[in-house]
Amino acid sequence: MRISALSEVLPGEPVSNADMAERFGLHERWLDRMTGNRARYFCDPESPDGVPKNTGDLAAAAGEQALQSAGVDPGSVDFLILSTGSPDFLMPATVNTVADRLGLNDLPTLQLSAGCAGAVQGLYTAQALLTAGARRGLVIGADSVVKLWPADRQLGKISPAELANFALFGDGAGAAVVEAEEDGPGLRVERIVLRSVGKGRAPAQTVRWYGADGAPFVTGPDGKERREAMGQEDYKAIERHVPELADGLLRELSASVGWPVEEVEHVLTPQLNGVMAEKIREHLGVRPEQAVHCVELTGNSGNALPLIQLYRAFRRAEENGVDGARMLATAIESSKWIVSGLAMRYQAEGKK
Amino acid sequence: MRISALSEVLPGEPVSNADMAERFGLHERWLDRMTGNRARYFCDPESPDGVPKNTGDLAAAAGEQALQSAGVDPGSVDFLILSTGSPDFLMPATVNTVADRLGLNDLPTLQLSAGCAGAVQGLYTAQALLTAGARRGLVIGADSVVKLWPADRQLGKISPAELANFALFGDGAGAAVVEAEEDGPGLRVERIVLRSVGKGRAPAQTVRWYGADGAPFVTGPDGKERREAMGQEDYKAIERHVPELADGLLRELSASVGWPVEEVEHVLTPQLNGVMAEKIREHLGVRPEQAVHCVELTGNSGNALPLIQLYRAFRRAEENGVDGARMLATAIESSKWIVSGLAMRYQAEGKK
Repeated sequence: MRISALSEVLPGEPVSNADMAERFGLHERWLDRMTGNRARYFCDPESPDGVPKNTGDLAAAAGEQALQSAGVDPGSVDFLILSTGSPDFLMPATVNTVADRLGLNDLPTLQLSAGCAGAVQGLYTAQALLTAGARRGLVIGADSVVKLWPADRQLGKISPAELANFALFGDGAGAAVVEAEEDGPGLRVERIVLRSVGKGRAPAQTVRWYGADGAPFVTGPDGKERREAMGQEDYKAIERHVPELADGLLRELSASVGWPVEEVEHVLTPQLNGVMAEKIREHLGVRPEQAVHCVELTGNSGNALPLIQLYRAFRRAEENGVDGARMLATAIESSKWIVSGLAMRYQAEGKK
Repeated sequence: MRISALSEVLPGEPVSNADMAERFGLHERWLDRMTGNRARYFCDPESPDGVPKNTGDLAAAAGEQALQSAGVDPGSVDFLILSTGSPDFLMPATVNTVADRLGLNDLPTLQLSAGCAGAVQGLYTAQALLTAGARRGLVIGADSVVKLWPADRQLGKISPAELANFALFGDGAGAAVVEAEEDGPGLRVERIVLRSVGKGRAPAQTVRWYGADGAPFVTGPDGKERREAMGQEDYKAIERHVPELADGLLRELSASVGWPVEEVEHVLTPQLNGVMAEKIREHLGVRPEQAVHCVELTGNSGNALPLIQLYRAFRRAEENGVDGARMLATAIESSKWIVSGLAMRYQAEGKK
């Protein structure tokens, strides 16, 4: 499989930590220090025409940009895959409305429910479909979390244990055009790793399917009725397990293609947030000039983020212009523990 | 690909139309005449231990039964796919908690968001994964719609346009063990068709992701505030398009394998409800003794239903004992219009 084009879409203007404090009642210093994220983007139903307002809008925009960048006709696309943890509807699957908007028809459309590993799940599934006879596909990752927020948008009243769900995440989409023909410009995928490793491990991230305002009422330990938490994050479990899982994954990828990690030009590290991205980079022994991460500038956009990171790595590889440059990408999903990653080679423009 | 074992799971006791009238305020005669369904099953959080209470419970039970029926060890399963339109959580994907419960680990787990075509999407994806190197996989379809209902369970107050969402559907799961090795007992899949045909067609079924009680308030034409409808069904569009799409699909499947429809031993017709299943059977010119449908006895259980239907067809083929018997299965998803189906041959026990 070869990735011939990539795209990223972030809705509206970046929302700074000062904005988060002013608009949503969060603490700017806490955001600075605890998350390390400096900006994120949110869909806004009141935004002007043309600005993505939901998961489907984001996905369609990312898909369109990737198809344009690849210079291919929608009629030549043999399948469409969308990964998301925040579908616009339960039915129809958002992938089908996105297909319609992209002019894709008479083709298999698959929507994967996932989180941080969703983008790799999409590429993994794409590789299988290409092996089974498809020639070209479009893989999109998109999430819009803002709709899970309480309608009054006041996050200051939310308990610290739940706050991570709102403080770390943002909206966005990324897309990749994938080709069975491995010769040609782009990223040639040499290996994909995808494994659920959740047996016996409690989920470290849960998001209920009905959003903050749809949750049923439960009686708290103080005897008061309140809404059940929309989501929960076991941040300690994430801090403990993600670095070790990332380390094993990176060594496995490296060994499987025979590229010593220290020689690899572009290493895409797991990106829960800015603080963790840097901690994990150090833990992995990846030098700053090797590393590619963007969560500190985009927020954690779930299924979109690994594709946005890959888009940025691809741009960097293009700028460097080193044909054959190596790329290792890693994504860990802590919801119920999935390790996923890719080993790729950059093939410069014009190469046959 | 060969399907080596199948299973079906329906939670608790069948709920008759008289029960529906008594417990949920619906009209028994309307259910009899309009849906043709005589029973369905619903998860009940108050049910005894061991009775499935949600989508994950249903899926795990169906997966376990299929693995047992195939007589295979969980350690020999190379991937797990779950199709559902009613996940227990947005995160983690239900497929990952199901994997844990089945003792499946260190393997790709994919969850597809779909409706009536989801089971075929699962088998289609499985076939690609088997072509790409996997040897055995488990494909599950499961849905539990009852959680989308209003908490008071009183459906009598719901407008007729929305009522179909509650009146037609039920909970259930089905599963299939699939093998790359095509020789052996079971159903050998000769062809799979899967195509989104939604371009420019409005969705005929929508289900909002937050359930009846989580929907935001909107102002109706009468100026009164009420909750937005949880779901809507364009029954007229379904009545108009499903028979014609089913006809095209069946002819296509038949032509692709060279089996004249009138000679095929088992024809699995689309199953919106009992009335439509019979109408479509007649429209397709399928004789009653060829047809296999079960929606009138199970309710429409979405992603589960085609696998339950296939389980029943497989049982019938086993009872008939005709090695090489042909089977054509069709499923139409009207959410945003997907045609899907399979051509299979029954291979009797003992055949190598």
